[in-house]
Amino acid sequence: MKKVYLAGPDVFLPDPLEAGRRKAAICAQYGLSGLYPLDNTIDLASQTASLDIFRGNEAMMDAADAIIANLTPFRGPGADAGTVYELGYMAGRGKLCLGYSNDPSSYAERARRFTAVRAEAGRQVDSEGLTVEDFGLSDNLMMIHALELHGCPLVTPRERPDDIWHDLAAFEACVRLAAELLLTN
Amino acid sequence: MKKVYLAGPDVFLPDPLEAGRRKAAICAQYGLSGLYPLDNTIDLASQTASLDIFRGNEAMMDAADAIIANLTPFRGPGADAGTVYELGYMAGRGKLCLGYSNDPSSYAERARRFTAVRAEAGRQVDSEGLTVEDFGLSDNLMMIHALELHGCPLVTPRERPDDIWHDLAAFEACVRLAAELLLTN
Repeated sequence: MKKVYLAGPDVFLPDPLEAGRRKAAICAQYGLSGLYPLDNTIDLASQTASLDIFRGNEAMMDAADAIIANLTPFRGPGADAGTVYELGYMAGRGKLCLGYSNDPSSYAERARRFTAVRAEAGRQVDSEGLTVEDFGLSDNLMMIHALELHGCPLVTPRERPDDIWHDLAAFEACVRLAAELLLTN
Repeated sequence: MKKVYLAGPDVFLPDPLEAGRRKAAICAQYGLSGLYPLDNTIDLASQTASLDIFRGNEAMMDAADAIIANLTPFRGPGADAGTVYELGYMAGRGKLCLGYSNDPSSYAERARRFTAVRAEAGRQVDSEGLTVEDFGLSDNLMMIHALELHGCPLVTPRERPDDIWHDLAAFEACVRLAAELLLTN
């Protein structure tokens, strides 16, 4: 059975195990096996807990045929860094890359919620004077175009769902695409 | 000559070209060739500008032997997403991975500056109820351990420099390490 690595800040939810179970169940409906970081058994009291988590996640990614990354903005204007790292890793490994964000707004729109953005010398800059990337994309261009060139374009809902952390419609759309691409080749 | 990809939000500085020139000059002092995203000529008025930037960056990464990622916190508690994507990509490609952050504080400390963090059911959670990862690391464990296992541990200064966006001492320490590893093997 083809394996899909389920990357995302879902592991930081109050109900992280249930979130993984729901995602894996959707994968199974489409004939895919979902690999979720918390499937690895880690002793969180161990001195090496964080390294053990890393090694477990990397082994899962190496075993997977594809990644579905939850790029919903996390604790700031953009996606969760751990998830972004994993998307990059899978692109580098030549695996099929898919991703979704439950927030359909653009990065530049969201940046304005976190920092004062002003025009300066033809650029939009934040309160530190750093350029706010504005190509009208959902997030940093590296992730957005990585998805296009290493898999499928980012999936976003037409409207922001009421519960951006538990709504799985965009996720399911990714699973459907992954199944089409992985199971017909 | 061995090539090092210079990843970081330096491209968002008010003086992005000069920032790249300074980094490339340091690489040259150590016998390395620094590849900086803005070395690619992109027509920013083009409809395909962001895709052209992506393709240029990916080609540079594919040509490089190593990456030095500037993981200094950017517009939030953690590193710039584009840089994190690139670190993941280079790890996935089996390239030598180095990185630095000019902010020596831990991720959990910085998260407290951006969101109200409280204890809940044995976890530290933010204002949305999402777990704040706290292994005492400088950033998300995926990047920190990727550096350890795919190159060298994150380089940080003992104290935060006055100008975190232009101080290159930690960067130069990475270049020295990269030269030792790339030029003696």
